[in-house]
Amino acid sequence: MYDLLKALRVVEGAAFVAGPSCGLYLAQMGAEVIRIDTIGGGPDFNRWPLAAENGKSLYWEGFNKSKKSIAINLSSPEGRALAVRLAGAPGENGGLFVTNFPAEGFLSYEALKKAREDIICVRVMGWADGKPALDYTVNSSVGVPNMTGHPDDPRPVNAMMPAWDFLTGAYGAFSLVSALIARRMDGKGREVRLPLSDIAAASLAHMGLVADVMGGAPDRPKLGNDLYGAFGRDFVTGDGVRIMLVAITARQWRGLMQTLEITDQVATLEAQLGLSFAEDEGLRYDHRDTLFPIFEAALAKRKLAELVPTFDSLGVCWGPYQPLSKAIDDPRLFRGNPVFSEIAQPSGRTYLVPGFAGTVPQDERLPPRPAPRLGQHTDEVLLEVLGLSSAEVAKLHDEGVVAGPAAA
Amino acid sequence: MYDLLKALRVVEGAAFVAGPSCGLYLAQMGAEVIRIDTIGGGPDFNRWPLAAENGKSLYWEGFNKSKKSIAINLSSPEGRALAVRLAGAPGENGGLFVTNFPAEGFLSYEALKKAREDIICVRVMGWADGKPALDYTVNSSVGVPNMTGHPDDPRPVNAMMPAWDFLTGAYGAFSLVSALIARRMDGKGREVRLPLSDIAAASLAHMGLVADVMGGAPDRPKLGNDLYGAFGRDFVTGDGVRIMLVAITARQWRGLMQTLEITDQVATLEAQLGLSFAEDEGLRYDHRDTLFPIFEAALAKRKLAELVPTFDSLGVCWGPYQPLSKAIDDPRLFRGNPVFSEIAQPSGRTYLVPGFAGTVPQDERLPPRPAPRLGQHTDEVLLEVLGLSSAEVAKLHDEGVVAGPAAA
Repeated sequence: MYDLLKALRVVEGAAFVAGPSCGLYLAQMGAEVIRIDTIGGGPDFNRWPLAAENGKSLYWEGFNKSKKSIAINLSSPEGRALAVRLAGAPGENGGLFVTNFPAEGFLSYEALKKAREDIICVRVMGWADGKPALDYTVNSSVGVPNMTGHPDDPRPVNAMMPAWDFLTGAYGAFSLVSALIARRMDGKGREVRLPLSDIAAASLAHMGLVADVMGGAPDRPKLGNDLYGAFGRDFVTGDGVRIMLVAITARQWRGLMQTLEITDQVATLEAQLGLSFAEDEGLRYDHRDTLFPIFEAALAKRKLAELVPTFDSLGVCWGPYQPLSKAIDDPRLFRGNPVFSEIAQPSGRTYLVPGFAGTVPQDERLPPRPAPRLGQHTDEVLLEVLGLSSAEVAKLHDEGVVAGPAAA
Repeated sequence: MYDLLKALRVVEGAAFVAGPSCGLYLAQMGAEVIRIDTIGGGPDFNRWPLAAENGKSLYWEGFNKSKKSIAINLSSPEGRALAVRLAGAPGENGGLFVTNFPAEGFLSYEALKKAREDIICVRVMGWADGKPALDYTVNSSVGVPNMTGHPDDPRPVNAMMPAWDFLTGAYGAFSLVSALIARRMDGKGREVRLPLSDIAAASLAHMGLVADVMGGAPDRPKLGNDLYGAFGRDFVTGDGVRIMLVAITARQWRGLMQTLEITDQVATLEAQLGLSFAEDEGLRYDHRDTLFPIFEAALAKRKLAELVPTFDSLGVCWGPYQPLSKAIDDPRLFRGNPVFSEIAQPSGRTYLVPGFAGTVPQDERLPPRPAPRLGQHTDEVLLEVLGLSSAEVAKLHDEGVVAGPAAA
């Protein structure tokens, strides 16, 4: 957590990964992020994984940490009007709304503009035409599962992490802040519509895949764990540790050969083939079936602990394959990484929670705050953000338009 | 492309995916992005895929479209000094630098600050300690390949798309714009260090995986193509089309059963089991081995074209599995998607190139610009950004400190 965006107030009405991660990134950069929660919780309030002891969603509290929550009955006209009013709440750095609600529903941009003419709305969508899509259905539509997995198995392989969701969340945070910069220049509000489908399609194009296929190249085949276009694959060391090794740059390549003491052996191969692997990373890919056995044999003779100091001193790029349960104790990743702090979450569990995923050496790192209980900040938001009177707040409670937190 | 950030001038000295995609996102939002290229090209200048006809990198031009290029000899002290000076070029909305150069090298934050006290630097890193890492080595380190693929095959499965790279790029663009907002408030420059390792670790934590494992749950097993915690998997229709079907919300679930005309059959199963799948998405996951055959049988009786209208009208979430070569002609993704325009790139190829991956309905969509040739803007940048005289520019050329574009 840092406070670079401490002046901003963002309202979020969103579920699942992309929208809530957008709000999370903003919160971790210091913005005040107020979630509009349906009373009782939205469609992701019970998303797995759950805490076995009480059924609370570890997923929900993962995406909603460091935010505030106001619980509103979003089925009622009064609740919907209140949500719109909150999205358009005043303030030079307010009127910033993140949602994945439908573009044509009660939170349409037209409706939002009635609350605040210069409102900025980042709207996460599935398809651009408003039809539903999730990371998984977009991923299959652009062909990624067909290009994933081992070549001896024709089954497509779905991604385990919803990468398009996460990317859309970060792109959404970038878009919101960019739209604020534009609004400060021209006074105009904007809706930025971010379909997962566009994010996925654009990303494949950035990689050169669209140019390649449109130029007549065949679809990329499944490559197993091989890196495309350079040297990289998983290997097993003599003590049975599986590691990922990559050599894209000449330095990485030379360092790797030197560590494994196969520089001469590879030079002999280069002489036979009449080429230089150091000068052209693509040759390392073209000839990988010849190269891999040399590396396999060399790695099988060495223990990982012997290799690591040389890997490190020569700038070799490698990483272990380790289950998350082991990675938790890797001080570079979780326990010991200053990005993480142990805090108590609404599930009742205390565990390692990340703040901003990086470091600003000039600034003080602030600890992450827990996720709210549903409606934990209902009264605070109504009183302070919307400026309602205590009597008005009480009336909203009495009428069931809003709710405070359930008793713990 | 939109012009929300048209006031900004960003300098980029970066290679591979994360850094250049950060600059790309900024350029597509309207910022002027000037790449500092090593004369002859950096370590990703020949990254695959290549255009078969001339060996030009489709990857490089994919990540560097809509940017400018100044070619500098970064091995020489004069060239290095020029790069630092350019990063710190004046202007209220300048002094914005994106890099993946080492934190301790000639582009260290200390060195950059000497050029401009309030410079903002977004630095993409591998590990936070400066050791090299790429998407693939970070991904294996946090355990994703162990959780990917079919459960009948114990081999880990690497990701095909470098998701952590893309996410770091978008998070970097967000960080840069956030740091600019902060600088406008407090006048201070900042370095935002973004290790891929922190991005990956934080993302797994956001999903609740860290809480789950730290609470004693076993590592998540490989689930094949099953969605974790709700209903989702790939199925094959009667006419042999593989589709991804997901039902997380009750509406998606009911719509899916209704389309497949299995509502009664599932109700019978619910009565036998004494539970309600509509009310608890987790039950759909727990009982997936019982549910999947019902869906398989129902889908095997129907052709996709018959199903689609009902899927659409009932809000069912689905997507085809299609190779990229087929997706290219899907008007929702590539050809026909207004995000894409056919433009000529430096490879000599004309193909579909994306602009900003979304839509701002209030603003005019601007077409993407091609990637530069290396050094295409060398003189323009030296004259206009650094304010050098023509004589000074000529001297830099004569001394080999800079270069213009090679003859086409």
